[in-house]
Amino acid sequence: MSLARLSASLMEEVKALEKEGRAKAPERVVVGYVPPRDGLGPRYRLAGSDKLFLRMNSNSYLSLSHDPRLLEAADRATRELGAGPGAVRFIDGTFSYHVELERRIAQYVGKPAAKIFNSAYTANLGQGLALASAQTYWIGDELNHNSIIRAMRIAGVPRENRAIYKHNNLEELKKCLDAVPPGMERVVVIFDGIFSMRGDFTPLAEVNRLLEPYRERFPKGLVTVMDDSHGVGAYGRTGRGTEEHTEASCDILIGTFGKAFGVNGGFVASSPEVIEAIRQKADTYIYTNPLGVGDCAAALEAVNIADSPEGVERLRTLQARTQQFREGVEKLGWETIPGPHPIVPLLVRDTARAKRLVQHFFEHGVLVVGLTYPVVPRGEETIRFQINAAHTEADIDYVLEVLRAFQA
Amino acid sequence: MSLARLSASLMEEVKALEKEGRAKAPERVVVGYVPPRDGLGPRYRLAGSDKLFLRMNSNSYLSLSHDPRLLEAADRATRELGAGPGAVRFIDGTFSYHVELERRIAQYVGKPAAKIFNSAYTANLGQGLALASAQTYWIGDELNHNSIIRAMRIAGVPRENRAIYKHNNLEELKKCLDAVPPGMERVVVIFDGIFSMRGDFTPLAEVNRLLEPYRERFPKGLVTVMDDSHGVGAYGRTGRGTEEHTEASCDILIGTFGKAFGVNGGFVASSPEVIEAIRQKADTYIYTNPLGVGDCAAALEAVNIADSPEGVERLRTLQARTQQFREGVEKLGWETIPGPHPIVPLLVRDTARAKRLVQHFFEHGVLVVGLTYPVVPRGEETIRFQINAAHTEADIDYVLEVLRAFQA
Ligand SMILES: Cc1ncc(COP(=O)(O)O)c(C=O)c1O
Ligand SMILES: Cc1ncc(COP(=O)(O)O)c(C=O)c1O
Repeated sequence: MSLARLSASLMEEVKALEKEGRAKAPERVVVGYVPPRDGLGPRYRLAGSDKLFLRMNSNSYLSLSHDPRLLEAADRATRELGAGPGAVRFIDGTFSYHVELERRIAQYVGKPAAKIFNSAYTANLGQGLALASAQTYWIGDELNHNSIIRAMRIAGVPRENRAIYKHNNLEELKKCLDAVPPGMERVVVIFDGIFSMRGDFTPLAEVNRLLEPYRERFPKGLVTVMDDSHGVGAYGRTGRGTEEHTEASCDILIGTFGKAFGVNGGFVASSPEVIEAIRQKADTYIYTNPLGVGDCAAALEAVNIADSPEGVERLRTLQARTQQFREGVEKLGWETIPGPHPIVPLLVRDTARAKRLVQHFFEHGVLVVGLTYPVVPRGEETIRFQINAAHTEADIDYVLEVLRAFQA
Repeated sequence: MSLARLSASLMEEVKALEKEGRAKAPERVVVGYVPPRDGLGPRYRLAGSDKLFLRMNSNSYLSLSHDPRLLEAADRATRELGAGPGAVRFIDGTFSYHVELERRIAQYVGKPAAKIFNSAYTANLGQGLALASAQTYWIGDELNHNSIIRAMRIAGVPRENRAIYKHNNLEELKKCLDAVPPGMERVVVIFDGIFSMRGDFTPLAEVNRLLEPYRERFPKGLVTVMDDSHGVGAYGRTGRGTEEHTEASCDILIGTFGKAFGVNGGFVASSPEVIEAIRQKADTYIYTNPLGVGDCAAALEAVNIADSPEGVERLRTLQARTQQFREGVEKLGWETIPGPHPIVPLLVRDTARAKRLVQHFFEHGVLVVGLTYPVVPRGEETIRFQINAAHTEADIDYVLEVLRAFQA
């Protein structure tokens, strides 16, 4: 059998990944949710264990995914217009909720227009498909998210049309700009806002300053695309993300409804013309069903909450817990990457030790992510913690206590 | 401003699309649903009109998207485990509903294992990323869906590693097989099950017969990948799709929860080894939030209904209405592509006339899709109708009456 040959050869490839340390462990399965009580935040049950787990590895920064207002909005919308859209956007799969969410998220991030996608992943692919051309040149940060790297491939960007600069290294970015080959008419500088493995961010104001003298050089524009999936809703004084934190604007903003907002879906926000080009040219927008109206309604509700005094209050809690955790970690003598983002990396700088630490937390009912080579360079082995607004002071104290108790 | 330059240049590109007839018209917005009553099926309201519209352009073949059992299942699941997963699959974003839906859909389509994706679109990208290698050769039907074409790009398949055969032309497919360059270790023959623009299908049994003598030639397998998004749930005696209709098996099956099942999401079903390779290597599975549990629960319910006597009953209704419509269209002297699928193309073979016909239907409250050059070759201008299980005899009679009344 020919499938047997394929299967066997794929297992060889997976084994090679295992040998390199790149293979993913079996997935743990979340089977239950225990709401906050007695000064403790939510807990989770995993298949095959009776323990309750504290999640320090969720992107749901504002902790909205269990909010009854979101769930009721989703239920109402599906009762009104159905579960799935039954068609792609341009074949009457566009419902009032899609249009309303596009209006609302554009307004929230302060851009004239937006298009929603099924995820930030497909939004990144979509912007690539819409902006790429034989005369478009791409310059990206080496640590950009996988969806940006894959966007280059799906958009058919050849090696000659792209350059990579070392993480947040503006001198290298400048060199890339100086080295744009003649004939390029459009240049796109593309980067994550918040970097998901580190919690640091692109210094957008400085990038803009650096780009300024080059802006008129390219007849079809020199623009920035920033994927602020971990920033929008979770970062900055009122949650507008890296743009707000750096007091600067990007030209095209990518975001997700699947992290701070607690739902699912992605978006691109920019000028009406860019958004119309996305609608006409982004295959990952055009040829697939859009989000169901339930997700749209829940996301709308989440944005409304984030944009209210209650949202700012949640953000304050998130910031306070993040500070509490960062201070505790430093007091215990651990190295981190400084900054106010709720992603807090603990630099362990040793593979075996990092693995023991992840296991130690697991045994004490805390879910964290270990990042080892080749996901991060050797010597930068890291444990990633993520704080969210439902973590209580007692939760953070507990996690710090578990960390303190770690021997070796 | 540099964004102004980008915006202006993108508008030039959109104008070029308009000139070529490739631009998409503004999206109509569905704002209301009117349930079936008085022998009529569901009707829809569009923004800016007080008319009620009959949809003959929905993929929701079993008409399940408004079924209260799906909506209640979704609501229950989100109340239990939240709206969004808050993380990717391998970072504890895997919930019981994901695992259960994977088990259930694998069982339904009769394959040993399955992985779910956010859409069939990203499932196609995912299989490409998992199977591609420098020694993998791809052979595809010229009319394959956009997501398969883009899968070749995102997987970095160079021109030398692929070939295309004329639509359903098995002689050409044989020539492609004979011309696989030396050194290729794995060959993937990839095609749509049902072709969405035509309602015809790949003759899978004949493809398998053709492939048989080649199967042992390639050490890492010669396999078929079939995207049966329009087939699974909607086609074949019990809804198993093109495999059932052709009494044949593909090696890797791609499908969607967003058409017959009325929800959203996609899947890949195959051997456990193929599915494990997908989990390890398909970036569109790994680096993005999975479906919310609400969509999973609704899809589960939809598969359960499809797999029950009620599901078979719905399929019978769908088949009866499809036959009623096909016979009516032929009686009126119009040309179609024969076959039992609920996609019924009306070959108009003239651009202006096709546009007038779409407009005529719209004025009479019927939503249909017109396909003109360059979406279809010149001379093959088509109106696509899609039947679903909620259409009543009276609905189909009405549509035929509107068609009869079309002058010129
Ligand atoms: C053959 C085929 N594959 C994939 C898709 C995309 O399905 P989904 O909406 O699940 O991405 C479609 C529908 O547009 C299709 O016709
Ligand atoms: C920077 C960045 N972009 C995009 C994504 C993907 O987001 P989504 O789940 O909406 O596809 C992630 C999350 O994994 C991310 O960290």
